[in-house]
Amino acid sequence: MSLLTVGSVAFDAIETPFGKTDKIVGGAGTFIALSASFFEPNQKLVSVVGDDFPKEMIEKLQSKGVDTEGLQIKQGEKTFFWSGRYHNDMNSRDTLVTELNVLEHFDPIIPASYQGVEYLMLGNLSPQVQRSVIERLEVRPKLIAMDTMNFWMDIALDELKKTIALVDVLIINDEEARQLSGEYSLAKAAKVIRAMGPKFLIIKKGEHGALLFNENNIFFAPALPLEEVFDPTGAGDTFAGGFIGYLASTDDISFDNMKRAIINGSAMASFCVEKFGTQKLVEITKQDLENRIEQFIALANFEMVQTVG
Amino acid sequence: MSLLTVGSVAFDAIETPFGKTDKIVGGAGTFIALSASFFEPNQKLVSVVGDDFPKEMIEKLQSKGVDTEGLQIKQGEKTFFWSGRYHNDMNSRDTLVTELNVLEHFDPIIPASYQGVEYLMLGNLSPQVQRSVIERLEVRPKLIAMDTMNFWMDIALDELKKTIALVDVLIINDEEARQLSGEYSLAKAAKVIRAMGPKFLIIKKGEHGALLFNENNIFFAPALPLEEVFDPTGAGDTFAGGFIGYLASTDDISFDNMKRAIINGSAMASFCVEKFGTQKLVEITKQDLENRIEQFIALANFEMVQTVG
Repeated sequence: MSLLTVGSVAFDAIETPFGKTDKIVGGAGTFIALSASFFEPNQKLVSVVGDDFPKEMIEKLQSKGVDTEGLQIKQGEKTFFWSGRYHNDMNSRDTLVTELNVLEHFDPIIPASYQGVEYLMLGNLSPQVQRSVIERLEVRPKLIAMDTMNFWMDIALDELKKTIALVDVLIINDEEARQLSGEYSLAKAAKVIRAMGPKFLIIKKGEHGALLFNENNIFFAPALPLEEVFDPTGAGDTFAGGFIGYLASTDDISFDNMKRAIINGSAMASFCVEKFGTQKLVEITKQDLENRIEQFIALANFEMVQTVG
Repeated sequence: MSLLTVGSVAFDAIETPFGKTDKIVGGAGTFIALSASFFEPNQKLVSVVGDDFPKEMIEKLQSKGVDTEGLQIKQGEKTFFWSGRYHNDMNSRDTLVTELNVLEHFDPIIPASYQGVEYLMLGNLSPQVQRSVIERLEVRPKLIAMDTMNFWMDIALDELKKTIALVDVLIINDEEARQLSGEYSLAKAAKVIRAMGPKFLIIKKGEHGALLFNENNIFFAPALPLEEVFDPTGAGDTFAGGFIGYLASTDDISFDNMKRAIINGSAMASFCVEKFGTQKLVEITKQDLENRIEQFIALANFEMVQTVG
């Protein structure tokens, strides 16, 4: 099948208890596209960078089958830049710098050759930008998934709800699910959020795994207990990329296949956090991924031969 | 097989956002014994109460196959009493009252008829009392599991470590694992704690499920996403009771069977929190349990037909 990823392509500067980086390549679109490229060979990207963005990274994406016709390069402008510092628990972070730059007036132009794409992944962006992508596709994709964050719930809740109403799968974390729904219980939150439109809701819980809800089913995917989380930046996007890439490549949106997609996304995310930025994602092989999937199977698998004595 | 449970039998008074109770029956030993009785018909209890403890509850335990010869009833003394108030998130609580009463000088006397017991569950008690039980058993049980809490890490760490060194399975929560090991990563914490003696470590994570570690394997058991947690009191003990009761009844301490035991413990705990105190545990049937186990299978089960496209 074919997959369109829309999301920021950016620079990050990251500080963790393990060290710090200068400006390195990051951005939701980058992590999603790299992760999805492990599964889906026919991928298209819509994003925007400045003329300071390294050509090598664009070529890296192309070498992984990502069509970058929709990646706008703005001459004389600068790429989106984010800088943050993680606390010791690696679960919370302070934003040090946010320079929107080219992202401030981002108009997601869809190249004609992208029309007819079957799977759409909307990375975290303003809900208006996300919605305009959906509106500009002449044929509705078979499956639309979106990520968002609390920032948009704070400043653009009505716009966000309009976009959420148009998608099939919403992917957010537990705090965001609680904020969006006003419910503490994730089971209740899922009902409230699914009533906003999405048939499927994925709630990411970081080191605690992820939950997938639809009308009648719940699936709880574990996270691999890692000895060290080196840099969590991009883990959620990498998860989303693995999820949508797996769905696009298998072209099966049944609940059972979504479970498999979540396990693949979780496996990709478990690699992402082992090094700074995208470093690990560009190193691993398909064999590495297969080995890690085996670890997830061992981790979550049980067989109930006898329930009551 | 046969199972010996040692743990407090007590009164609790509980306040949650859903309501409050007068003094109701609680205590680790009570929750463990009730939960284990769903699996293992041959159970023995060592504990202590005052003469204010209701006979009906002792008869209830007996009716579920629990031998109460080792339950000391201290004339003229009062039963252990704890009172607490849960915060809105139900994950944290304030202790309002702790009256040790009969527990202050509890000497865990083992009736002669209890000797030869094959499975031992040590509920949360002072590590010295827990250790004296192990020392008083003439034949070491096939499997010894223990629970403890941060309180003993704060005031009696050396004693606690001596007891931990003697057991096969340690059952604690994530905060306690971090405190005991000095490691934030649970994978690292598990290594440190297993080096203290226990071949198996179970880390309970409340609504995030539970992890089982041994030398080479990790298992991640989900928690059922519940719409309402009415009262979390006793959930950990109920989990431990289901775990050890299942192991005792199946008499199989392989890693695969421990997985099943954890799922059964998780299922029992998911009932426990639905009403105040032990109320739900005494209501449910084996059919209710089987139905809930089916929910856990649906929740955690996935089949990987294809990992990489």
